[in-house]
Amino acid sequence: MEIAKSLQQVQPSYIREILDAASAPDVISLAGGLPHPSSFPVELMRDTFHQLPDMPKVFQYTNTAGYTPLLDHLNQRYQLPASHQAVVTTGSQQGLDLIARAYIDPGDTVVMETPSYLGAMQVFGLVQAHIVTVNQNSDGPVLDELEACFKASNPKLFYAVPDFSNPTGISWSLTTRQAVAELCIRYNVTLVEDAPYRELRFAGDMLPMASDFCPEHALVLRSYSKIASPGLRIGVVTGLSDYIAPLIKVKQGADLHSSVPMQAVLLGLLEHKDFDLHLLRIRALYRECYESMAAALDAYLPEYCSYNKVDGGMFVWLEIPECDTFELAKTLLDEKVAVVPSAVFYPKHSKVKAALRLNYTNASAEEFEVAIQRISQVIRRNAETCVA
Amino acid sequence: MEIAKSLQQVQPSYIREILDAASAPDVISLAGGLPHPSSFPVELMRDTFHQLPDMPKVFQYTNTAGYTPLLDHLNQRYQLPASHQAVVTTGSQQGLDLIARAYIDPGDTVVMETPSYLGAMQVFGLVQAHIVTVNQNSDGPVLDELEACFKASNPKLFYAVPDFSNPTGISWSLTTRQAVAELCIRYNVTLVEDAPYRELRFAGDMLPMASDFCPEHALVLRSYSKIASPGLRIGVVTGLSDYIAPLIKVKQGADLHSSVPMQAVLLGLLEHKDFDLHLLRIRALYRECYESMAAALDAYLPEYCSYNKVDGGMFVWLEIPECDTFELAKTLLDEKVAVVPSAVFYPKHSKVKAALRLNYTNASAEEFEVAIQRISQVIRRNAETCVA
Repeated sequence: MEIAKSLQQVQPSYIREILDAASAPDVISLAGGLPHPSSFPVELMRDTFHQLPDMPKVFQYTNTAGYTPLLDHLNQRYQLPASHQAVVTTGSQQGLDLIARAYIDPGDTVVMETPSYLGAMQVFGLVQAHIVTVNQNSDGPVLDELEACFKASNPKLFYAVPDFSNPTGISWSLTTRQAVAELCIRYNVTLVEDAPYRELRFAGDMLPMASDFCPEHALVLRSYSKIASPGLRIGVVTGLSDYIAPLIKVKQGADLHSSVPMQAVLLGLLEHKDFDLHLLRIRALYRECYESMAAALDAYLPEYCSYNKVDGGMFVWLEIPECDTFELAKTLLDEKVAVVPSAVFYPKHSKVKAALRLNYTNASAEEFEVAIQRISQVIRRNAETCVA
Repeated sequence: MEIAKSLQQVQPSYIREILDAASAPDVISLAGGLPHPSSFPVELMRDTFHQLPDMPKVFQYTNTAGYTPLLDHLNQRYQLPASHQAVVTTGSQQGLDLIARAYIDPGDTVVMETPSYLGAMQVFGLVQAHIVTVNQNSDGPVLDELEACFKASNPKLFYAVPDFSNPTGISWSLTTRQAVAELCIRYNVTLVEDAPYRELRFAGDMLPMASDFCPEHALVLRSYSKIASPGLRIGVVTGLSDYIAPLIKVKQGADLHSSVPMQAVLLGLLEHKDFDLHLLRIRALYRECYESMAAALDAYLPEYCSYNKVDGGMFVWLEIPECDTFELAKTLLDEKVAVVPSAVFYPKHSKVKAALRLNYTNASAEEFEVAIQRISQVIRRNAETCVA
């Protein structure tokens, strides 16, 4: 049976594929975006798991928008104005998919930074969006480019991860957040602010969200995969009720609603008196992880490589001499180290800067030491055969 | 922000909307497809809920196809040949959505019986399928019509619910199952066999699935919403691995994977020594419910109405004199009885037979008595103003 044309264009996720190879016991994986197993707040969820069998409502169908007690909590937590509402999604990945399906006709323009989140490129690709990219500097998107792009291509959406970009780890400056919001208002572009790493800041000041400066022109995606557990598959999208209603309409067909016991578990966690303490612990853990990786990078990297210092998130972006990064990643897998090559974070046919995305939240200091040594060796070995 | 053209054509689900009205405490709802709360096998799931906090793997990301121990179990349970595989979905509704997105280009033909499941019409509508319908008789689809339709319109998929159709409750005869399978093979049409009610047979003999006669030309959707709990949101699609791979590719973008704790809970349930006993109990419960409703229908219905006797499932299809069934349903809601009018089970612009879908799995015998009395009164009252 022939598959749909929209799907024929989409490559399977390289990350999902190498996660299989990366899960072999002798491979050190810096590839996935997996949280550290010790970050899962199991003890803060245990009581709810025990109580679930005695909560009959969680076993029945519920509203598509979500389990009412969780929605009430989220309205409070994010102080949604009366004009706004939330829809609970099966992971924030589903939130993205619903946005793409609700708003994008084939050929509609979606703007993204490059490099950008692969999973977003996939969903916008599936709806056959015309993806236009702008470059990113250390403050966020290059504003002149962004304005020129808004002017020229009349986009519907600007998709971005202002807090600790996936893959570069960059956090937008306050000025950039304000400027992007103003541009979205001026050119009537909806900002899709994806914030899965926002709570993972371990250095610098927490900044307002970019969407705080354009709340009527934004859809905000929040994930609980990094601060609770990805296994639960619960995320949320918030925005103007008029913007959320079409997402709910698509979600009716997509899965009716998200798992109710999982929504109840998340609610129990968010309301737990030790939840804030748990966030402090994750941040401390990830700071320590990042510092181990940074120390190894400083110790072993050849001088012609560089990486972004980050204040949070899950990734380090390692810039390397120009080469075929897919080949490099394969060679590294032979050396039992899994990484993600930069090419997967660029739309097809665009100019790719050679780099590797390194995850620092799922391995030990000893593993970083070994992995970074191997990466450095392979890069040195390859440097001769690559175009410098 | 303007919504996508594909979504502009889709009406929000009338059922989901009236479920809100139907949930008012003084309304007797025969509208939804809600299982009876006492049917949820909570005691058979309790141990797994208690164990989840000590099962670290359920909190991490997993494979898109599903939680491996559950997949292994399902392979066994459904005796999948080596050429076949399963993908776990966020409810079987997601399975349908994945099939539509993976295989249907705008304008591709999908065949359905009329009347047919609303949620299927929604997902095929969202991908802008050309929906062609064939009539249903008491044995299943009218075979001559089906063959003519396969010949004339070269469809990609034939969607059907052979065990206790939603909305009519009809179960296909063995002969029809074999004949449909042969037609699917001969005309190279993929049978999408949706089997959410298959385990709810309380009378007559369990028949082979239609897809058992054309396993290389079928995708099978199974739901655990009716035999476990809809709140969990877990279903499964099985078929040739070549047919399943594109679904997995779409699912990567749709939600990465389904909730892992919920998959573990379902596995614990399916492996529980008392699971078969639980199925016997649900069947006995629903037979009793059906008999109560049938008794009330026999007692109160005007003689010009009729309903299908059913051997299982969740619905009775009550045929009534021609009228605007939406208006009738609204009048009934004023009388504090919620039902679903037949029009929602037909594609737009098709000829609708006046009927009401009555659910018998979520109310008590006393409520059936009252509700059917009110329905009968309203029908009698309306009969004068309706075209007989």
